[in-house]
Amino acid sequence: MEVVGAGHPYVPADLELPDYVPVFLNQSTIVGVYLLTSMVIVSIVWIVSGLFPKISKLDRVLMCWWIFTGLTHMVLEGYFVFSPEFYKDKTRFYLAEVWKEYSKGDSRYAGRDSAVVSVEGITAVLEGPASLLTLYAIATKKSYRYALQLAISLGQLYGTLVYFLTAVLDGDNFATNMFYYYAYYVLANSFWIFIPTMISIHCWKKICYAVGAQEEKKKTKVR
Amino acid sequence: MEVVGAGHPYVPADLELPDYVPVFLNQSTIVGVYLLTSMVIVSIVWIVSGLFPKISKLDRVLMCWWIFTGLTHMVLEGYFVFSPEFYKDKTRFYLAEVWKEYSKGDSRYAGRDSAVVSVEGITAVLEGPASLLTLYAIATKKSYRYALQLAISLGQLYGTLVYFLTAVLDGDNFATNMFYYYAYYVLANSFWIFIPTMISIHCWKKICYAVGAQEEKKKTKVR
Repeated sequence: MEVVGAGHPYVPADLELPDYVPVFLNQSTIVGVYLLTSMVIVSIVWIVSGLFPKISKLDRVLMCWWIFTGLTHMVLEGYFVFSPEFYKDKTRFYLAEVWKEYSKGDSRYAGRDSAVVSVEGITAVLEGPASLLTLYAIATKKSYRYALQLAISLGQLYGTLVYFLTAVLDGDNFATNMFYYYAYYVLANSFWIFIPTMISIHCWKKICYAVGAQEEKKKTKVR
Repeated sequence: MEVVGAGHPYVPADLELPDYVPVFLNQSTIVGVYLLTSMVIVSIVWIVSGLFPKISKLDRVLMCWWIFTGLTHMVLEGYFVFSPEFYKDKTRFYLAEVWKEYSKGDSRYAGRDSAVVSVEGITAVLEGPASLLTLYAIATKKSYRYALQLAISLGQLYGTLVYFLTAVLDGDNFATNMFYYYAYYVLANSFWIFIPTMISIHCWKKICYAVGAQEEKKKTKVR
């Protein structure tokens, strides 16, 4: 239990968190439950989507990502957005524990930084449900599936960029120590840079190809 | 000159702006120069694009918007992002005057709020040049023109949303008075909600139509 002078383990130490209740669960339990639950849900999507021969392997991988990121946005980040006092939680409620633990990597969560809350709000309320919609759109090959995936991925990139930029501008001193800085703040968030970047490129190419092909057809008709 | 107790005309009065130099130009000059310059540039784009019969009227209107918003992002917002001490400017430099004046509607500009600087940074550095690229993409009917316009428009919407959400979360008390609140903070920004929304819908439809048409063609071929 890393409770220091301020009554909480977070940096900066002068961050005021009255009635802070220390995290009960240990790190491996908190991270383990998240990863295990995610793996189970992703496996179900992988197996069920495999029953439909018309869904390509790539699309099945994308569906696994979208269920994972969508539920992360809605459940984990959704809880954070609407629970300003999670750090006072005494009930050992798992989602409160998650954010008490994550705040060691970025105390702006416990401190309710307005940029963090805004970005998380957009992510949880708009991008979360939209991510789940992509599963339906991909499975049924809706014509809007590329535009939708591009829109959400660019939104995730924009949000992550604001998240990092505001941290740097505000002094980049919100992690309890270097381990939490790299494990939570850098590593965990890096997935929401690399994967949305790859999906954006994929969808961008698909869109350009379709637009180009359709206009080529039109031209041929005119001739 | 609305210099009050704090030595500056901004709200909250306890905002510290050492060496603040009051705005020299009056409001109608500042706003007038912006609108007049914009009108001249937009007119040039309208006239020149009209010389190419293959560019539709709608595309010409879009080009006018993109030159206007692109130069606003790069010149006005670009200056703000890289000039943290604009409020100390004594040279009557026009761009410093713009932000001294605008800060009456939102003092977070003078106060260098990190969320505002982050959003403006992304807008000026990424969306500004991308906006100018759309002119070339529309004029030459590049297959990426819809994806590009959708990407920038959604970015503008995301930025404006973060801009308003952070203001609300931080108490929504950054305007010198109700006039500046509605004229600068609400009205001026509302254009970057309505127009990007309309362009997003337009491009979304175009993309879905192209993807749908291309897949319909594929299906027909398979049959």
